Amino acid sequence: MCLSLFWFASDGKWGIVLLDHFPAKIRVFDTTLRDGEQTPGVSLTPENKLRIAQRLDELGVDVIEAGFAAVSDGEMEAVKLIADAGLKAEICSASRGTHGDIDAVAKAGADSIHLIIPVSDLHIEVKLRKTREQVLQITRDMVKFAKSCGLIVELSAEDATRADISYLKRVFSTGIEAGADRVVACDTVGVLTPERSYKLFADLRTSLRVPVVSVHCHNDFGMAVANTVAALRGGANQFHATINGLGERAGNASLEEIVVSLIALHKQKLGIRTEKLYAISQFVSRLTGIYVQPNKAIVGENAFTHESGIHTQGMLAHPGTYEPIKPELVGGRRRLASGKHSGSAGIKAALAEMGLQPGEEQLKEVFQRVKAAGDKGKAVTDADLLAIAELVLGLSKEKPIQLQEVTVVSGNTVTSTASVRLKLNGKEVNGAAMGVGPVDAAINAVKRAIAEVEPIHLEQYSVKAITGGTDAMVEVTVRMRKGDRTATAMGVREDIVMASMDAVLGCMNVLTTDYNNKKG
Amino acid sequence: MCLSLFWFASDGKWGIVLLDHFPAKIRVFDTTLRDGEQTPGVSLTPENKLRIAQRLDELGVDVIEAGFAAVSDGEMEAVKLIADAGLKAEICSASRGTHGDIDAVAKAGADSIHLIIPVSDLHIEVKLRKTREQVLQITRDMVKFAKSCGLIVELSAEDATRADISYLKRVFSTGIEAGADRVVACDTVGVLTPERSYKLFADLRTSLRVPVVSVHCHNDFGMAVANTVAALRGGANQFHATINGLGERAGNASLEEIVVSLIALHKQKLGIRTEKLYAISQFVSRLTGIYVQPNKAIVGENAFTHESGIHTQGMLAHPGTYEPIKPELVGGRRRLASGKHSGSAGIKAALAEMGLQPGEEQLKEVFQRVKAAGDKGKAVTDADLLAIAELVLGLSKEKPIQLQEVTVVSGNTVTSTASVRLKLNGKEVNGAAMGVGPVDAAINAVKRAIAEVEPIHLEQYSVKAITGGTDAMVEVTVRMRKGDRTATAMGVREDIVMASMDAVLGCMNVLTTDYNNKKG
Repeated sequence: MCLSLFWFASDGKWGIVLLDHFPAKIRVFDTTLRDGEQTPGVSLTPENKLRIAQRLDELGVDVIEAGFAAVSDGEMEAVKLIADAGLKAEICSASRGTHGDIDAVAKAGADSIHLIIPVSDLHIEVKLRKTREQVLQITRDMVKFAKSCGLIVELSAEDATRADISYLKRVFSTGIEAGADRVVACDTVGVLTPERSYKLFADLRTSLRVPVVSVHCHNDFGMAVANTVAALRGGANQFHATINGLGERAGNASLEEIVVSLIALHKQKLGIRTEKLYAISQFVSRLTGIYVQPNKAIVGENAFTHESGIHTQGMLAHPGTYEPIKPELVGGRRRLASGKHSGSAGIKAALAEMGLQPGEEQLKEVFQRVKAAGDKGKAVTDADLLAIAELVLGLSKEKPIQLQEVTVVSGNTVTSTASVRLKLNGKEVNGAAMGVGPVDAAINAVKRAIAEVEPIHLEQYSVKAITGGTDAMVEVTVRMRKGDRTATAMGVREDIVMASMDAVLGCMNVLTTDYNNKKG
Repeated sequence: MCLSLFWFASDGKWGIVLLDHFPAKIRVFDTTLRDGEQTPGVSLTPENKLRIAQRLDELGVDVIEAGFAAVSDGEMEAVKLIADAGLKAEICSASRGTHGDIDAVAKAGADSIHLIIPVSDLHIEVKLRKTREQVLQITRDMVKFAKSCGLIVELSAEDATRADISYLKRVFSTGIEAGADRVVACDTVGVLTPERSYKLFADLRTSLRVPVVSVHCHNDFGMAVANTVAALRGGANQFHATINGLGERAGNASLEEIVVSLIALHKQKLGIRTEKLYAISQFVSRLTGIYVQPNKAIVGENAFTHESGIHTQGMLAHPGTYEPIKPELVGGRRRLASGKHSGSAGIKAALAEMGLQPGEEQLKEVFQRVKAAGDKGKAVTDADLLAIAELVLGLSKEKPIQLQEVTVVSGNTVTSTASVRLKLNGKEVNGAAMGVGPVDAAINAVKRAIAEVEPIHLEQYSVKAITGGTDAMVEVTVRMRKGDRTATAMGVREDIVMASMDAVLGCMNVLTTDYNNKKG
């Protein structure tokens, strides 16, 4: 426990920095598979839930809320499957305060029950159409019934942060008397602030006699992570969170952000293997279909990417200048990108990787042209940078691989089929291939055409979300590998097949060009 | 100013809730076009910057940081264009502490300069290779020079939150003595916590004699919004922020989240027309190409979407149960989605819109089948719900529109061309059309085939980001309108053309079916 810090401001106003009351052990309760799966549009099969549960177990969370057993047969099956999988984590299922819901949890074989009881007057009167006294009675009866089923009972107060605090405490005390093992105060619509969260949980922690007081935050105002950390500082000793902050509406508190904040900003020890965070974020994103925005903290694609000159110059001198933590801590990786805001140091480093050492004047010229491309609204990939450098350095403007012709046929009664004719170092090569769709067919045909000469591997193919109409611009980005060299390129067109061809051929051209073997 | 709240916890620990020191007027400094544009991969043309600036001006921000004039010719042009546009907001440009950078700002015709001076020892020693004393001298000289150019000087301390606080104050006092009009403490790598932020800004506000003390937060730990609000509570009277939280790495503090938190959670008054937030978020997302994740607070697609039964039941009784603010406050709209977690109340409401009033047993059966679809990992659109309801109610299983044949040819030497043959209410119709790519051609052909019979309008066509490979699953969602009815449908395939056909035909089938005109 820390000492309090007194401070006095020069105008006579004063305050006391709130004490740190972090508990000795912070429990991590993951609800990706329950509250996270309630994200509109997300449905996971029991098998995919199990795959995510296994990853969460490896990550080291204390509790996995596997689902809401009473919701559907599949949910029941998912909880069963996960409860039987021999994981280290405790397996929990959510439930309303009804015999049927609690029965379902017991039948699913969960270790514990997350028993949700609404406590704000709005929820009690309008949603449940009951009275406060009736809800106290339900709490007592349902906790007893859940205990009689042999379950660990985590009693959760829904909409606790808009409830009368003295009533909230009565619900909890009633539940604890009836045998509840833990209590959870839910900020159901995300209206807490860090100072209110600290105060609420400090109060609950000291006024209730129960081994676990947990916080459960939603992110409607973008405060869920700060509110969760504030609750733990106040003395809560467990938090509910989801991978990628999935959940109803704006989602739940993001597990990865809380974990890394606790470790890096508050020097707390957790049993989480943080180096797995990036991979599990990607895995959950893929299985749920909910995209992680590039500027998402900790696990976004840009979280450790630097473009602006001031930043890349700093990064090349010392990574600490613009990175609060090492990307390896969360299994991420650092990237330096080229663009309008690049400085010459960053561009020089990128060119060196392609085997190009421009003179000072030439570098300046490349630098100007990269900026000019940016001013026209263009993102600058490796392929663009190479094209600019070649122009400036007076190197071969003839691309090793040139597209002569591509034709694709597809439909519901034909297998997508493509033919391509390419010039590879002046020599014509061609290939035809089928695919699962027109893009796949076209790229397969390119691969076949150049396979014998240039063994190049497509590592990543991605298309930015398309919105608007069927004639909207499509942005395709690819990363390809040849031996231990990788490169990126982009294609932007209204036609997804041609955008994909541009990106793939652009990347291949970077990788088949190696100035290390030609000129210094 | 609020009174402080003393409170005593029952175990003898105690604390004081920090005083609210919100200033009478909170200034909003938008840096979407400067720090936001430094998002890796983002480049805006001067024209697009102007379009965003106009939207920001209508939104009601006090200052628009239009760019970094010295970075490139395009940036210079952008700042000029915006400074000359006659906007109400003050127009600012960023600058390093060099004569060249400051000259550029003056030449661009900006009202004010955001003069960035690094203040942490790490930045001073490693990045600048200077001493603290040299940086003080630079601060003095550069503030004077900027003032002599007629600029309002906003002196910004880079990496202030990792700097020696007494040195930070010396830099600020030196700048203020030299004529700086405002000071900004930057949390450059996002390491503040709300309690540290409160304390830092309360300290700066009371120890500096300057009209504006501003906070500038980054979101590396997901705390930027909470830290910004804490700084304002401590007495800072301006904040820097970006639309959608764009910016280097995990981005800057999100303007929309701060604004709505201040208004809804702290009852502060701001000059922001909040009802424009959703539209400007979409606009910036479209122009920058940086997708907003569905579970983003305030402006995400799911921020006001409800699926789970407990939630939709509550929402139908009273929107306040699961919404902390009305969606109209930010120009958003409420959606009730169907899926595995739906309750029967939500499904009944959705079916009523299609003109279907199932009996109690039928509703139960529809409800079970929606859940079963969810258990198989399927999201449930209007088209899916209709198909299930028709099956259960024993209604025509024959879809009004059926695909017989579609064939598409595309490539670099042919114009994408498609032909379709459809059955429309048993009668064969067909059409052929060209398009900008294979998808556009196919959908144009469908439109042509049914145009005379069914005037249906494609309102939105979107494709979820595709990652993995060229054979990855593609998820196409469409929303279509016929008269005043809209419907959604989805297609999921490895082939983008066929996924698009599935979605469009699915939607058309919902809209050409109206049970209101047939049976009760």
